[in-house]
Amino acid sequence: MKTINFDHISSNQLLPEVKEVMIEAINRDYHNPSSQHRAGEDAAEALERSRQSVAKLINAANSKEIVFTSGGTESVNHAIKGVAMANAEKGKHIITSNIEHNAVIRSLRRLKSAGFKVTSLSVDSSGRVDPQNVADAITDETILVSIMHSNNETGTIQPIEEIGRITREKNVIFHTDAVDSVGVVPIDVQVLGVDLLSFASNTFYGPTGIGGLYIRRGTRIFPILDGGVQENNKRAGAENLIGIIAMGKAAELTQRDLDKRVAHFKRLKDKLLGELPNYIDEYIVNTHSEYSLPNLVSFSIKYIEGESVLLMLDDDGIAVSTRSACATGSLRASHVLLSLGLSHADAQGTLVLSFGIENTEADIATFLTSLRDVVTTLREISPLYKKAVRAN
Amino acid sequence: MKTINFDHISSNQLLPEVKEVMIEAINRDYHNPSSQHRAGEDAAEALERSRQSVAKLINAANSKEIVFTSGGTESVNHAIKGVAMANAEKGKHIITSNIEHNAVIRSLRRLKSAGFKVTSLSVDSSGRVDPQNVADAITDETILVSIMHSNNETGTIQPIEEIGRITREKNVIFHTDAVDSVGVVPIDVQVLGVDLLSFASNTFYGPTGIGGLYIRRGTRIFPILDGGVQENNKRAGAENLIGIIAMGKAAELTQRDLDKRVAHFKRLKDKLLGELPNYIDEYIVNTHSEYSLPNLVSFSIKYIEGESVLLMLDDDGIAVSTRSACATGSLRASHVLLSLGLSHADAQGTLVLSFGIENTEADIATFLTSLRDVVTTLREISPLYKKAVRAN
Repeated sequence: MKTINFDHISSNQLLPEVKEVMIEAINRDYHNPSSQHRAGEDAAEALERSRQSVAKLINAANSKEIVFTSGGTESVNHAIKGVAMANAEKGKHIITSNIEHNAVIRSLRRLKSAGFKVTSLSVDSSGRVDPQNVADAITDETILVSIMHSNNETGTIQPIEEIGRITREKNVIFHTDAVDSVGVVPIDVQVLGVDLLSFASNTFYGPTGIGGLYIRRGTRIFPILDGGVQENNKRAGAENLIGIIAMGKAAELTQRDLDKRVAHFKRLKDKLLGELPNYIDEYIVNTHSEYSLPNLVSFSIKYIEGESVLLMLDDDGIAVSTRSACATGSLRASHVLLSLGLSHADAQGTLVLSFGIENTEADIATFLTSLRDVVTTLREISPLYKKAVRAN
Repeated sequence: MKTINFDHISSNQLLPEVKEVMIEAINRDYHNPSSQHRAGEDAAEALERSRQSVAKLINAANSKEIVFTSGGTESVNHAIKGVAMANAEKGKHIITSNIEHNAVIRSLRRLKSAGFKVTSLSVDSSGRVDPQNVADAITDETILVSIMHSNNETGTIQPIEEIGRITREKNVIFHTDAVDSVGVVPIDVQVLGVDLLSFASNTFYGPTGIGGLYIRRGTRIFPILDGGVQENNKRAGAENLIGIIAMGKAAELTQRDLDKRVAHFKRLKDKLLGELPNYIDEYIVNTHSEYSLPNLVSFSIKYIEGESVLLMLDDDGIAVSTRSACATGSLRASHVLLSLGLSHADAQGTLVLSFGIENTEADIATFLTSLRDVVTTLREISPLYKKAVRAN
């Protein structure tokens, strides 16, 4: 059975060219880039080449502003805890939103128990933060604003540029978790006006477990991994050079192909949202119609459980998701969907589809047919559905 | 020119079998082990297999006691900061030694600025900590003892088992930085009696940028990377699965071959130390004659600079080191060598040779001949040497 992957937000395959450079790097036996002799020079050069490719992808002014990390989660932890520790004497107030990824939420929870105060802003029913709320929440004690670029469950994109104007004016450090955006939509740290930006290689078809943190020159931040002098003294530890080389290649290819990818994703998304009403009824689209990732659609199907839909689609060889893979194991309704104003029951019926470059319009058609059958079957046995039908 | 690598402590090549499984993993396009559908199951199984291989290598009672990290530095930061944060209410006193790696030193420095108190124990002239000093330093406030298993500059092995008996008796958490030991000498966490043990894959011919932290069941510790529920809720972030699979294979091969490797290293070390007096005079061996890594020799050549020796040997295609690669860029004499009682001048003349499985006795012979020429040349232009000769 051919399987269709519509869960790219959880994992992307590696691009063939990325595989090639990884295998080449594996066979090359690079030495330690920090070693004192000639054997390490090639490694140091490869490291710098990757840093430049990544810097270019997000338009960093200098490759020194890129710190390689073990992925998006480390980048987010570094940004939030690093700024908190380095600026605690100035103040202990941090502003965030209600719909952040667990890496942000739990980093902030950790800081709260160390005496930091966190203001968590609500989003409107379309899932967006109002920049004016950020401005209003800033006090003399505020040292950091951390608002995600795009949400991993709804795909909704936040008004980062507008928030960036406010934080610059008020001289507050601004971090954005762009883990699901970098490589999917054009990202320019100069346009966004952010001081810190977290990203992960797998979003743009590089390997998992490698990512980066953009740190604008002059931003006051401590490392979270202390030790050696690697990464311009900002992140200790011998480098995952094979992963870094792969991420550099993935960044280079992404920059070349991004427009094409976006157009492809949009075609798939338009087809899905356009045809969905012909296949099922009574659902809520959670993704913003204008400000959202082109490769992600979230919708909540009334009267049934998303988990059951997922398992039945899985039987048909179609992989989708109901929430972030990082939250697997938790049975509670998603905090993101509840923040949008969805009821618990509706939130439970949510499916998240995220497209990849290999998906086709035929995949969408296959999915829609499967979905119709699954929804029909599940509603037949749904007491909620029977009650609703009876009421009408 | 054939190059000889005698700087294995800075970087090891990958074993051919490790390369094979890495390439296989790259071509397999594993999905996210935490994803909700079937596509992630293979990944979750591969992850668990690696965890078991690694657990076996250090004789952990349960694979759940292994947390995969981005390398030795993260493991050390996690152990030290994680224990400090989780046990601060019990006390804020930590005991360590004067010869630790920068990952330990700088993690502790970070904690000191957060109000923790650190007792740093001296080593004797052979480079070892006296366990009685650890016992004497423990107070009611002590929450952690962190003493390295082997030193990365001298190779000297610490009396971990004896210290472990003391910490267990006094009910204090015990961490050992075993980054340069796991894979080089047999390590058994039950015998050592440690609660936490840091290690890195590259030491045993796996990739760089991947490592692990052994956390004995029941040890009170917080994560340092907060976010998703990966690694049994102890370390958030999508896994570097390719690196983890490679480390698992490397662990498996190491367990199989360790005795053979140790015997090989010992032969090389004996040859080097046995023949060295036939090639140069006036040097000090910094490595303990009994308690030391079989693959590492450190010696300080009087009247000349180690850096100059390194550069001239590099011209001959021989890679050695003068100190930890993590400290490259620092021109100060090594804190480890000064702790041994070496003068600044003697410490500057230090060479660290670390052997790998591909090194041969012929490599040692080539090195010795080169070294004799280099030392002769450098002493000819050394004012210190002229002065010493004149004095005799």
